[in-house]
Parts: sequence; C-alpha cells; structure tokens
Amino acid sequence: MIKNIKLTIEYDGTDYAGWQKQREGGTLQQEIETALSSLTKEDIKVTGSSRTDSGVHAKGYVCNFKTSSTIPSEKFARALNSKLPDDIIIIKSEEVDLEFHSRYDSKGKTYSYTVLNRLQAGAMYRNYMYHVSKKINIELMREAGKYLIGTHDFAAFKNSGSNVSSTVRTIMNIEIIRRKHTIKFFITGDGFLYNMVRIIVGTLIEVGIGKIEPTYIKDILVSKDRHLAGKTAPARGLCLEKVYYEELSLNQSYNNVNN
Amino acid sequence: MIKNIKLTIEYDGTDYAGWQKQREGGTLQQEIETALSSLTKEDIKVTGSSRTDSGVHAKGYVCNFKTSSTIPSEKFARALNSKLPDDIIIIKSEEVDLEFHSRYDSKGKTYSYTVLNRLQAGAMYRNYMYHVSKKINIELMREAGKYLIGTHDFAAFKNSGSNVSSTVRTIMNIEIIRRKHTIKFFITGDGFLYNMVRIIVGTLIEVGIGKIEPTYIKDILVSKDRHLAGKTAPARGLCLEKVYYEELSLNQSYNNVNN
Repeated sequence: MIKNIKLTIEYDGTDYAGWQKQREGGTLQQEIETALSSLTKEDIKVTGSSRTDSGVHAKGYVCNFKTSSTIPSEKFARALNSKLPDDIIIIKSEEVDLEFHSRYDSKGKTYSYTVLNRLQAGAMYRNYMYHVSKKINIELMREAGKYLIGTHDFAAFKNSGSNVSSTVRTIMNIEIIRRKHTIKFFITGDGFLYNMVRIIVGTLIEVGIGKIEPTYIKDILVSKDRHLAGKTAPARGLCLEKVYYEELSLNQSYNNVNN
Repeated sequence: MIKNIKLTIEYDGTDYAGWQKQREGGTLQQEIETALSSLTKEDIKVTGSSRTDSGVHAKGYVCNFKTSSTIPSEKFARALNSKLPDDIIIIKSEEVDLEFHSRYDSKGKTYSYTVLNRLQAGAMYRNYMYHVSKKINIELMREAGKYLIGTHDFAAFKNSGSNVSSTVRTIMNIEIIRRKHTIKFFITGDGFLYNMVRIIVGTLIEVGIGKIEPTYIKDILVSKDRHLAGKTAPARGLCLEKVYYEELSLNQSYNNVNN
C-alpha cells in the first residue's frame, strides 16, 4: 500500500548547493533521497516545498514522498537521522493524505534573517548571520517594513532567475527584534519571489543605516524596478523557519505563536 | 619604547586544540602569535588569561603581549583581523600598564553553556550546543544551583589534569535561561578548576532530568568526590563570555549588566 509521508527538516545549509537536485550534486534533496532509498530499498523521489539557495538554512523545511515501505510513518525521522549527516536533522515524519503536495498545498512561509550589528565581524555563529558594521536603527526599519505589509506587486524585490506568472504576493508580517548586537527579522508571507526576502532585508538595512528614507519603500514598490531596491543580503543569514498549510491572516505573528 | 597591549578576542573553538600552545599546533595562541609576529616583525609571545579546552569557544577571551611596535595600540585589532582566519576576531586592542598580566590580574570569569533540549538533535548551531533529549526542568536546576553559590571546596567538580594548590573557589552567580528549546547557563566565579563549569552543568542536568535531587548537590560538595558529581558536559556548549579585572560581588549578574 502506498503512503504519502511528510517530513519536517532542520538543516545547516552552509555546505550545500541549496535544496534542489543538481547534476553536480551536493544538495539537500539528494542527501535525503539517498538516505530514503537506502532505508526503503525503493527509488524515492521527494517533493520539496521550495528551492532554497546555496548557504541558506532551514529549521522547518517541509517535503513529502510516496513509499510502499512498511516502516511506520513516524519512525522515518529517527531511521533517517541515523543515515543522514550531522547537518541535516529530520524533526518529524508523519503520514498525510495521498493528495498532499508540499509545494502546491503551501499557504505561506516564515523566513528569519539574522544580522550581526557591531563594528567587528563575528567568529562564533558566523555561518548563520550577516555582519553589518554601520549602526542600524531598527525603529526606522520597522516603519519602512509597514509599507511592505499586505498585497503588492513585488517586482522590484525579485532577482531574475526564475519564471513566475505573477509578481504579486502578500506579506502578512515583518517582525524585527534586537538582542544585544543581533538583529533578527521574521518575514511571513503567502509566497516569496526569487531572493525576495534577501532583497527586502538588504533594502531595510539601507533604511536602518540612514541611506534611504522609510517612505522611499513605497516608491520602490510602485517603480517595480529592481535597481531601486537594496542589495541582496547574503544567503547565510537566511533561514526558512516554517511552512504553513493552514490559511494565514494579515499581521499574523510568527513569534507570538512560536516563542 | 615597550608597550603592553591587551586583546579581547572572540573565537569559534570548533577547529582548534584549545588556547594553549602545543607541539602539534592548531591552537588559538599559535594563530595569534603568528599573526602578531607577522604584523610587528617581532617574536611576540602572548600571555593568555586561561587555558580553554579543545572545542571550547570564547566571546571575550583576554590575552596580553609586549611589543616595541609603533602601530597605535587601538589599531592592532583591525590589523590582526586582516591576518587571522574567520574563526578568530579581535574585538578590541588597548594599551595597559606594563605590569598588567591577563592571568594573574584576573578577578573572575563568566562562562556560558548552551543546551538544546528537545527530542531531536540540532543541525543549525550544532557546534555551539549540547543536545539533551530528556525533558529538563530548569526550576529544579535553579534550586540546585543555589547550593553552589558562595565559597566552597569544589574538589568534587574538578577533573584531574591540572595541579592547583587549592580547590576552594567562589561562585558569584548561576543564571539559567530558557528560550524555546534552548537552555543557557551563565556561571560567574572568581576562578574555575579544570573542567569545573562543564562538570557543574553535567551535574545540574542530572538534577533537571530528575536523576538526582537538588539538595544532593550539598552532599556532592561535602564529599569532595568527583565520582558523585555528574558527567563532564561536552566542550562545544561552553563559551568564555568575559574575564573580569575588577572585583566581583556575590550574586553579581552577568545578564543584567551585559544585555
């Protein structure tokens, strides 16, 4: 009997060329398919909820696969963890409807982005954050972030590299938290264009260091011109925190729910 | 003219055999002496504030060295960072009295220890924490920690491997903070015996998982018997947060002052 199994995965993306299978190898998808195939003796193909770029991390990546294996669904997590390298951990395995598709059924995602804001770069945790030495004002970034909340054409916040029929997306919430020298962004939306989170963060940082005014965000949105937005912040600060399969609501907070 | 320069250093200890110079190499001290000697063209020897073990990290390690270099004292940080690998960052360089000795003049230290407390191991940040899958009750650990505060003979909390004339030390404070699945200990004392922080953490975890009673800590102290205390928690969770050169007071909090 065929079962459809959903996996929730944490991974350290530092040493991987992103999620999606590539001819050169070294992707998360290939590591997981190899472990699954070795475990089940089947030729397993997994469906990922999104591509993640090289160096991007995840605490709650979701994928699914179909199998005829008699291994109990909830036992896959531990069994896979014994075969996977230390930088990939299966948090949960569970049986879902045969129709469940981790990408098509996704209603949204929360990404976090971590910035180290002090004069000196970081030695500890350096693979998980982006170092910005100029002083960042988070109140200015919060004000700027408000203009991004809601449904907009985010064409200015997309790099070329993927074809999508529409560049309209809805951002539910942007939360910005400072703790000592660390600034953490949590961005929740119904979907994200290519590099959209990293460009939003890069642009908000330009607001935070006083390079552009918070209200300029409105002009960038209206322009639909990628050149007006800020730099694409580096991959290593980005982490896919959660994939949602229930409807999101506007202003929904990631931190209230998950802290 | 000879100057005495104090360095404050952050490092990721994952790939190092600890602080102190060893014949086989691969220590923090050697990396820093090599960078300093290359910078000043002198044969520089640095004096460290403590040995740290292989895999232990630091956010505020202190060392000092003497030099005749004309490089302004506060410029050493940036100049060294350009020569050092990514996992060592000089936070600050400053001139101090010629008599200053980073080890002899130290009045105490704060160490942090990070535990990931959930069923599954961690993929992200895995080099900076110790995974404990059994549920930990932090209130029990706080109660147990109170018996360690003050001046005691910590012979039961010391591994063999270093010779000290006295095993009496004073612990100023033990702070325990939970954030989601992460538990962080901050232990401040006037000095620590070999592996003392890691044994204290290992013992408090035994209290937290219900293996021993909080009051049993008193018996362990009185016994002076290493076998009664818990396991030495792994090095990767340990971080030297700060070295103090001013007198500490009992119950002094690391987090109130530094958050």
